[in-house]
Amino acid sequence: MRIDVMNGPNLNLLGTREPAVYGGQTLATLEARLSERAAALGATLVFTQSNHEGALIDAVHAAAAVGSAGVVINPGGLTHSSVSLRDALVGTALPFVEVHISNVYAREPFRHVSLLRDVAIGCIVGLGVDGYLYALDALAQRSARGAAPR
Amino acid sequence: MRIDVMNGPNLNLLGTREPAVYGGQTLATLEARLSERAAALGATLVFTQSNHEGALIDAVHAAAAVGSAGVVINPGGLTHSSVSLRDALVGTALPFVEVHISNVYAREPFRHVSLLRDVAIGCIVGLGVDGYLYALDALAQRSARGAAPR
Amino acid sequence: MRIDVMNGPNLNLLGTREPAVYGGQTLATLEARLSERAAALGATLVFTQSNHEGALIDAVHAAAAVGSAGVVINPGGLTHSSVSLRDALVGTALPFVEVHISNVYAREPFRHVSLLRDVAIGCIVGLGVDGYLYALDALAQRSARGAAPR
Amino acid sequence: MRIDVMNGPNLNLLGTREPAVYGGQTLATLEARLSERAAALGATLVFTQSNHEGALIDAVHAAAAVGSAGVVINPGGLTHSSVSLRDALVGTALPFVEVHISNVYAREPFRHVSLLRDVAIGCIVGLGVDGYLYALDALAQRSARGAAPR
Amino acid sequence: MRIDVMNGPNLNLLGTREPAVYGGQTLATLEARLSERAAALGATLVFTQSNHEGALIDAVHAAAAVGSAGVVINPGGLTHSSVSLRDALVGTALPFVEVHISNVYAREPFRHVSLLRDVAIGCIVGLGVDGYLYALDALAQRSARGAAPR
Amino acid sequence: MRIDVMNGPNLNLLGTREPAVYGGQTLATLEARLSERAAALGATLVFTQSNHEGALIDAVHAAAAVGSAGVVINPGGLTHSSVSLRDALVGTALPFVEVHISNVYAREPFRHVSLLRDVAIGCIVGLGVDGYLYALDALAQRSARGAAPR
Amino acid sequence: MRIDVMNGPNLNLLGTREPAVYGGQTLATLEARLSERAAALGATLVFTQSNHEGALIDAVHAAAAVGSAGVVINPGGLTHSSVSLRDALVGTALPFVEVHISNVYAREPFRHVSLLRDVAIGCIVGLGVDGYLYALDALAQRSARGAAPR
Amino acid sequence: MRIDVMNGPNLNLLGTREPAVYGGQTLATLEARLSERAAALGATLVFTQSNHEGALIDAVHAAAAVGSAGVVINPGGLTHSSVSLRDALVGTALPFVEVHISNVYAREPFRHVSLLRDVAIGCIVGLGVDGYLYALDALAQRSARGAAPR
Amino acid sequence: MRIDVMNGPNLNLLGTREPAVYGGQTLATLEARLSERAAALGATLVFTQSNHEGALIDAVHAAAAVGSAGVVINPGGLTHSSVSLRDALVGTALPFVEVHISNVYAREPFRHVSLLRDVAIGCIVGLGVDGYLYALDALAQRSARGAAPR
Amino acid sequence: MRIDVMNGPNLNLLGTREPAVYGGQTLATLEARLSERAAALGATLVFTQSNHEGALIDAVHAAAAVGSAGVVINPGGLTHSSVSLRDALVGTALPFVEVHISNVYAREPFRHVSLLRDVAIGCIVGLGVDGYLYALDALAQRSARGAAPR
Amino acid sequence: MRIDVMNGPNLNLLGTREPAVYGGQTLATLEARLSERAAALGATLVFTQSNHEGALIDAVHAAAAVGSAGVVINPGGLTHSSVSLRDALVGTALPFVEVHISNVYAREPFRHVSLLRDVAIGCIVGLGVDGYLYALDALAQRSARGAAPR
Amino acid sequence: MRIDVMNGPNLNLLGTREPAVYGGQTLATLEARLSERAAALGATLVFTQSNHEGALIDAVHAAAAVGSAGVVINPGGLTHSSVSLRDALVGTALPFVEVHISNVYAREPFRHVSLLRDVAIGCIVGLGVDGYLYALDALAQRSARGAAPR
Repeated sequence: MRIDVMNGPNLNLLGTREPAVYGGQTLATLEARLSERAAALGATLVFTQSNHEGALIDAVHAAAAVGSAGVVINPGGLTHSSVSLRDALVGTALPFVEVHISNVYAREPFRHVSLLRDVAIGCIVGLGVDGYLYALDALAQRSARGAAPR
Repeated sequence: MRIDVMNGPNLNLLGTREPAVYGGQTLATLEARLSERAAALGATLVFTQSNHEGALIDAVHAAAAVGSAGVVINPGGLTHSSVSLRDALVGTALPFVEVHISNVYAREPFRHVSLLRDVAIGCIVGLGVDGYLYALDALAQRSARGAAPR
Repeated sequence: MRIDVMNGPNLNLLGTREPAVYGGQTLATLEARLSERAAALGATLVFTQSNHEGALIDAVHAAAAVGSAGVVINPGGLTHSSVSLRDALVGTALPFVEVHISNVYAREPFRHVSLLRDVAIGCIVGLGVDGYLYALDALAQRSARGAAPR
Repeated sequence: MRIDVMNGPNLNLLGTREPAVYGGQTLATLEARLSERAAALGATLVFTQSNHEGALIDAVHAAAAVGSAGVVINPGGLTHSSVSLRDALVGTALPFVEVHISNVYAREPFRHVSLLRDVAIGCIVGLGVDGYLYALDALAQRSARGAAPR
Repeated sequence: MRIDVMNGPNLNLLGTREPAVYGGQTLATLEARLSERAAALGATLVFTQSNHEGALIDAVHAAAAVGSAGVVINPGGLTHSSVSLRDALVGTALPFVEVHISNVYAREPFRHVSLLRDVAIGCIVGLGVDGYLYALDALAQRSARGAAPR
Repeated sequence: MRIDVMNGPNLNLLGTREPAVYGGQTLATLEARLSERAAALGATLVFTQSNHEGALIDAVHAAAAVGSAGVVINPGGLTHSSVSLRDALVGTALPFVEVHISNVYAREPFRHVSLLRDVAIGCIVGLGVDGYLYALDALAQRSARGAAPR
Repeated sequence: MRIDVMNGPNLNLLGTREPAVYGGQTLATLEARLSERAAALGATLVFTQSNHEGALIDAVHAAAAVGSAGVVINPGGLTHSSVSLRDALVGTALPFVEVHISNVYAREPFRHVSLLRDVAIGCIVGLGVDGYLYALDALAQRSARGAAPR
Repeated sequence: MRIDVMNGPNLNLLGTREPAVYGGQTLATLEARLSERAAALGATLVFTQSNHEGALIDAVHAAAAVGSAGVVINPGGLTHSSVSLRDALVGTALPFVEVHISNVYAREPFRHVSLLRDVAIGCIVGLGVDGYLYALDALAQRSARGAAPR
Repeated sequence: MRIDVMNGPNLNLLGTREPAVYGGQTLATLEARLSERAAALGATLVFTQSNHEGALIDAVHAAAAVGSAGVVINPGGLTHSSVSLRDALVGTALPFVEVHISNVYAREPFRHVSLLRDVAIGCIVGLGVDGYLYALDALAQRSARGAAPR
Repeated sequence: MRIDVMNGPNLNLLGTREPAVYGGQTLATLEARLSERAAALGATLVFTQSNHEGALIDAVHAAAAVGSAGVVINPGGLTHSSVSLRDALVGTALPFVEVHISNVYAREPFRHVSLLRDVAIGCIVGLGVDGYLYALDALAQRSARGAAPR
Repeated sequence: MRIDVMNGPNLNLLGTREPAVYGGQTLATLEARLSERAAALGATLVFTQSNHEGALIDAVHAAAAVGSAGVVINPGGLTHSSVSLRDALVGTALPFVEVHISNVYAREPFRHVSLLRDVAIGCIVGLGVDGYLYALDALAQRSARGAAPR
Repeated sequence: MRIDVMNGPNLNLLGTREPAVYGGQTLATLEARLSERAAALGATLVFTQSNHEGALIDAVHAAAAVGSAGVVINPGGLTHSSVSLRDALVGTALPFVEVHISNVYAREPFRHVSLLRDVAIGCIVGLGVDGYLYALDALAQRSARGAAPR
């Protein structure tokens, strides 16, 4: 079972960018924690991080082409503006869980709307990097239940 | 460590109400699962379910008075209309995680707004009853880290 | 055939509250007229009036539990704010007709929106207390036609 | 006592247009049922159906000129756009009840607003063609009570 | 010099419709007063009144075809909804002045917007039937100045 | 002369809830201060505090039934959502003054709207618990002037 | 195979009305071009142009009654206001393509919304009178593919 | 009979400011034309022009104090922002006609709203400086009819 | 202790302007009542009334320059439009209470918004001229408590 | 004559992505059909497809630099968010026709707005991949008529 | 070459008003710095500061009358409300640059809109008092290039 | 002292794209002028131009990593849609000044909003390419004053 973990623009800064908001853990540390959990769940993870919308869309297409079981995605700033990323996820029928490290609803109004959330399995917001772990768990269990692709 | 789990209006119908949307598990089963997990986390749970906004506010006040470590809350329909429930949670400084079983963003527009989410620790939406478990985990870990009350 | 007639907040004042708007007939008189009509239609009525949202939700649950054929409901001020009452009616799949004694569209703008009307069988507005009689008739005939629950 | 029954655009299609929405009864059958009921109420009905806004306005003027007691009107699509039809009804002071066969509030958003409803006696929505019968009854009783023209 | 005077829906009721709002003068009297004034200005008037949007559009086309110098128009309820009437006036390049007998800005909000006013020469609102006389004067003087068609 | 003082949800927390916003005085202390002032004004006070909307509506009905001269009310979070509480006050024709301890206009946008204020005698906002004293004074003087019920 | 070509208000002015916007070709010329193309496609065309909304609705009903394969329609100003024309097309289940000669999105804001487009097969905007030819082609091919009525 | 003619900010520039919009006539010439017409109507005019909102309010108060029969007013840019000027006219009960030289509805959106128009007798827009003459005529005739102050 | 009492546009009309709305007491009488109360509180009052926004701003600057303890202000129509008056009060850090004689929330919608209220200590609305007395009391007590300037 | 055909994000999925919405034809097949038609029209086509906004902008610049006669463009999800793509097309003065395979007006509201359509020659929506053929035809004919670049 | 520097309400407080927002430099110091720079640019400056909208409008008229080359203007709170100041600048065709010391886009929402900016040459926001120097430079260079008045 | 100058999509077209809007100077010329000015200010400039949002984000990260003192940025069309670019600037705490060559407030409404401006030091709009020079000056002076990074 392959699961993709995708991070959008600026998440490569994790651990250095506004630690009061995003915590002090780097992306590499997070990915290591996720791989460890995935092993326990019998899943293999593929990681993508890009500051380019197009690269993320390409990655979604590629994941679908090889039969990924789903995507844990934190689209960063693209959450609020990218119809194309939404279209990629819907067009490939990949189930996904949307994750935000900080509580976006306690921040600027333009962060309160997501162009992806209504077509996601679900969303986890504000629980720090642990949100990725919960999302991974939810996707793995869903896949284990044999749920059909969205 | 006491953690409160509160369910708002109509969640007593769990397992019978619109199973396609909310799943077939009853509230009693959910509470049993949560208690089991809580034991593993070293926490004791107190459950409240009411169809009355006032009763939930009373329960929040009571939980704070005895030093609850936090609240996992699914406010049901009150999510979208109750300033008073928000005021109770903010006024008592109880940290809480907001949970919704279904993906509210894929439903009617009036469900897309929450009067509580910006003052919550975070939100979990659309991951079924497992969302309660993740929320419990997040609150327990937060408490274990010695995080100050909100 | 049991049909429930439910009245929300302030309708206990009927006959004394703003008679120019709501007429001079008391709730007791209205209920008597309705019972008389119900007898002719072969239906038994159960009446509920409460100023508490929670009590009305409890009553909806109870009606559904004993197989009520439907509800004639005037939700009063809850019409415009109670997602929970809507959820109770939708969650129990009870068919209902929404009634307003006065013409709410000729009054304050916040009365022009109902959170229940799109999931109702239909609405009767502005025809005075006779609206309840028409609603009862519509529900009884619907039930007689063997219409499935909503 | 003369009462007018007016139907706006497309209601000539009744029985053939989207039967799942509007039912299978033709306009002729409906008019026959209404005439029967009117006879019992001591009223004579005059029927108008037109796809032309201007023709309906002319009919309202004509009805008022000969002392009609009121109008049961289903304005069809003009409900949402015709200030002129509203002006005709207000300008002639004819009391009227607005009827919609389907539950317009469960349909497209532009059907949720009516340019007539705040100057109507009342509205009946979603109760099928029976709504016309209730409206007729309400107007006849109102006239019998000697209510002054609006 | 031919000038057209066009009146939209319900203005045939003038003198009988809501006299407190529109005054007690009939359309015939108004037209007579206008003809008298026109004679003094060296103009001939052609009158049109219709409750049919299409008939007014036809009249605009006809007036343009025979070289009318302009139109004094009170579009009644079509003011607020008829893009087609606007298109007819713009498409024929006929200059026109929009007149309203009552002060539409002191009435319902939907009367505060006009689909014609931004392409009119100007508007006269709330000055009773005298507004037609002022509009006629303005058009006649404009024509006398040799102003090009709009 | 009886005057009612009603406090809505969470005001039982006064003195402990967010003291920086609401001050350190308890509800009991406030009620004692008010009683003292009332004695000087020749009035008797009846106090109600509830976290239940329905209980407040019941209290309004009860106050009206025994001829209360008016109500000093701080509806708390119900200010922004309860059409039913408004209906109770309007339906019983009890004059009332709306009081808020903090300056609601300097807080979240949803607190800037009140469903009661346009039918109140007046409002006092942001002057701390002294606002209740001014409101009491205003109601007592109004009653002393023999002003008719609203 | 019969296909209807319907033109709404003011399109009789084609060739004379604002040639900079609509081009210099008359409606007769356009209809001749369309007939020529239809012959090549094995279709017979029926043309309707009216400045009356009601006449267009009547024409839609008539076309459906004799089994028209679809409608190429330029509703003119009715595009933006006629719920009734939409209802006629939906009620008769006639497939249609909406055509606008000019680019309505480069003009006044009220032209940016169409009450018909979401129930059309598709729309062609801004390609001049050639848009009708493309629409005809699209309907003919759709019919040739044996597509079921909408 | 005294009538006041008041001009707001920038109207002292008349004749020099944007002649394509406002014409080439100076304020002095306009005032002379108005005085001539007033003499024929048996009225005396008092002229005020100021770029200061306060000075115009003072002038309204002064006019009312000496029994002015009404005001012809072009408030210039204050039309769209001055609640205080509105309050002065309403507070003194002086009847007034609002005049705009250019067609404000063909200009920037912020010019489409007037804070005075709903409390005016009426408005004349877009008819150049002749609008003042029509307004004067309307006020004089209204006064001659013995109409009570507003 | 100096306290300033400032009245904006049209409040010089007090006692004569719309007595049904504002009462029959003149500004002089009100000022006398306030001075009497101020003496009891150990404060000296300085009164300003102007119809000129600029003069009020100048007065705010002057009051701050000589160490005024605060301002009781009824900004009249400037409440709803003057960012500059707000800036003067914020820029000088003078604490102030906003007073309105009538209940502005029961009047035109544009009166429901205040550009000053969120930076005021508090607001008193609808309690007649007594509102000034309560505001004076609140400012005096605040100053007596040694509260720092805002 | 060179014409560019540009496809935005996710259109590389054509034939596999949501066939019920977009049809079963692949992008390669579509391009072949277009080339065939182009040959008949005497035009050479250059194809671009990218999931990267920047790559599309680069392509627009490149097309303009070598004198392309125009662009047939389906911007995919960029339609609704890319001011930069609009700027590229406007900045290079390349005429273009916007094409959408599905009827975007029958889908999610965020698809109802296009940031490009008002600066396009025109738009074709909902006619499947045939829309590209019509757009090609329109551009070729426009070029053949010697129309100047936009 | 004369250039005018105009400052609106409250800018006389510069150096004392909210120094954290506006800096500690007084208006006199700023004017001295500007004069020095102007001398280097071969320009003479005329300074105006007023808390009165009317006085600023008068100053604009006066500057234009003597041939000022342009205006550097910080309209203070009038930025957001004064149509009249805009009209003065447009009516006199004086080119101007709008300056704000603080970053108005980081402050209250009502400061995000300017009624002047779309008719300005340009705007400088948030660069402290140096913004005036840049604006002066821009106007002087524009004038030196012989640019025609706006 | 390193300062970065970044230009977003389409600014590579400078000098050729819409010269009436953007002037005739190329990007190379502008960069040369800026370098010359930077030398005088003791700063070294690094230039980036890209049509790819991701490339600009990468450049912001890179600039921060090597201790850039700040950024002069013209984000082009990304100004209005890129939350990610904003996040990059905020996340790296790089101070920046936003520059627009043309007066965006005199253009299409979607250009009136910037997703970056509230977190910028300031903005310069409409002053042509000189705006970059002023921005450079402001950043250099700010850095020279030893201002801490944002």
